[in-house]
Amino acid sequence: MLEQFKVGHDEAEFVPGDTLKSTVAGIFRQLGVPDGDAELGADVLVLADLRGVDSHGVSNMLRSYVSGYQDGSINPRPDWRVIRETPSTATVDSDRGLGTIITPKAMNIAIEKARNVGVGMVAIGNARHLGMASYHSMLALEHDMIGVCMTSCPPSVLPTFGAEPRLGTNPIAVAVPTGEEAAFVFDAATSSVAVNKIRIAQRLGADIPAGWLAEADGTPIMEERQAPDNYWLLPVGGSREGGSHKGYGLSCVVDILAGVLTGFGYGAVPGRPNFGHYVAAYSVDAFTDVSHFKQEMDEWVRMMNATAPAPGHDRVIVAGQPEAEMEAIRRDEGIPLHPEVSQSIRDICAELGVACGF
Amino acid sequence: MLEQFKVGHDEAEFVPGDTLKSTVAGIFRQLGVPDGDAELGADVLVLADLRGVDSHGVSNMLRSYVSGYQDGSINPRPDWRVIRETPSTATVDSDRGLGTIITPKAMNIAIEKARNVGVGMVAIGNARHLGMASYHSMLALEHDMIGVCMTSCPPSVLPTFGAEPRLGTNPIAVAVPTGEEAAFVFDAATSSVAVNKIRIAQRLGADIPAGWLAEADGTPIMEERQAPDNYWLLPVGGSREGGSHKGYGLSCVVDILAGVLTGFGYGAVPGRPNFGHYVAAYSVDAFTDVSHFKQEMDEWVRMMNATAPAPGHDRVIVAGQPEAEMEAIRRDEGIPLHPEVSQSIRDICAELGVACGF
Repeated sequence: MLEQFKVGHDEAEFVPGDTLKSTVAGIFRQLGVPDGDAELGADVLVLADLRGVDSHGVSNMLRSYVSGYQDGSINPRPDWRVIRETPSTATVDSDRGLGTIITPKAMNIAIEKARNVGVGMVAIGNARHLGMASYHSMLALEHDMIGVCMTSCPPSVLPTFGAEPRLGTNPIAVAVPTGEEAAFVFDAATSSVAVNKIRIAQRLGADIPAGWLAEADGTPIMEERQAPDNYWLLPVGGSREGGSHKGYGLSCVVDILAGVLTGFGYGAVPGRPNFGHYVAAYSVDAFTDVSHFKQEMDEWVRMMNATAPAPGHDRVIVAGQPEAEMEAIRRDEGIPLHPEVSQSIRDICAELGVACGF
Repeated sequence: MLEQFKVGHDEAEFVPGDTLKSTVAGIFRQLGVPDGDAELGADVLVLADLRGVDSHGVSNMLRSYVSGYQDGSINPRPDWRVIRETPSTATVDSDRGLGTIITPKAMNIAIEKARNVGVGMVAIGNARHLGMASYHSMLALEHDMIGVCMTSCPPSVLPTFGAEPRLGTNPIAVAVPTGEEAAFVFDAATSSVAVNKIRIAQRLGADIPAGWLAEADGTPIMEERQAPDNYWLLPVGGSREGGSHKGYGLSCVVDILAGVLTGFGYGAVPGRPNFGHYVAAYSVDAFTDVSHFKQEMDEWVRMMNATAPAPGHDRVIVAGQPEAEMEAIRRDEGIPLHPEVSQSIRDICAELGVACGF
């Protein structure tokens, strides 16, 4: 049934990543974003598309970023700065800058600190949406570091036993360097599912699996059926018996580290438009020999891949592998955009007077 | 149905925490553990009992620790040492010492580093079982720090789509200081459920919920029914559609940070008896004002508690609250030990020639 959620290959228009990136950068520039920042923001969005993380790519995020710049809720030229600092930590005031652009800079601070003292950790407040969290964690890889990124989002998810949303989808991303194998790149919301999967299921009239949603009164829906018109997201695990207290607790950890710890509030604070971020870099060399670590990561990945599969499955995969495979395909074939999406980008370009590259 | 898994209150023998602790410390001493270490190990076990985490208390763990000391797999007088170090990190060789005793010492190293440079992080290899992971993370609280603990365990959990166990129950614990409210203390396996809950269900003939187990061939059991005789644990989420790739990925993160990063191998390495640990302390003061942070944590906890409950539930709780409530009760009433458990402790005492305090 999950297959139904994939974009149809035949109907798509294929756009090269670089073409899409230069088009998006042009849009950002036209909205007042400085050149280098515009390139960086476009790079984050397009890497999501290249890796098959369409939920965080151009199709799903660009329109809201454009609106945010236009209505003033996102600051195109933020005076972001470090407001507190130790040898291994920093706290950043984003000045309402787009997280997509400021978070990589914060990650570079974390990487520099990790190079100097072993670990670097940066909390980022007064922030806006950061795009695909794994983009930021993956910046650590080329430095032989483990990268972590979390983001505290506006509330859409029920706490276990609750009937009102108190937590965001609050993802956790962790990237780990390897030798020859694809890097380990975990990036997942602590909610059961992304809300756009529900919208697609509703549009198609498809059933949703047990444990994805709660009724409007907070009762978890624990059988496969049509999504109701009014619903809330659940923490991963679905119901308490399915382990939702684990998803709920991890989501709380994200809300604390990427929210309360920033000093700029947490996801459910009324009126915060409403993101805080957290990035960290751990130098592998600080803990153990880097080449031994990478060899053992390769061995570990191959061990997982060599696991006998359960009936109905042909292989066991490791986080980051499907995305690396998709990236290889899309760097070759281009990014498949649904006709509605490519038209919507052309519309934005026309509206702003920007050249569209496709 | 989960109610059936609780120990019956009426049949229990109530033993004061201090009595149980001195008895357990006496057992450790008789097995060759130095005085201070024996006290520390007993403190870790008994705090689990006091907080209602019976799975990691005396009843469930003491016998295996005694066997480990007796068969030589656990070293009672380990020459543990820091083998690599930076201002914010250390790597410890446990010399086969019990994690229950060495992990608090590693956490103290992390806390000292966090005091000096903002964050401290210690990977611990060549290790043995560490007891309740939250014990170690909670050591950070009195220093106004956030504490983290993970442990890479021997394989018992299937990777998503797999038919062979490759990962341990691999818990994650995070403790966060508050002001007046109970500290936030999250401590959960990344598996769907602890194996002893399955054993209890089998003994009682009770059904288990969907998503807890897979058949021996790896097929997730996605309806409520009796547990099969042969089964594997699943990652939290149960099946892929329920989000098991999230539990699987988080379990991998634990296996990497608490396993590969130690330099002493990961959970599924054949022959490793088979634990690695990871602890970290983050100084709140390094990021933001401590008193503001604690006030906001109180506000955040109260916001969660004030969430309207779903039908059939009377309140929304935060991780650490039920344990704090249980600790208050058990420090008053004593720890309820099942008669089989209290007898088993007396048997161990008799076998070793140690005075039993109850």
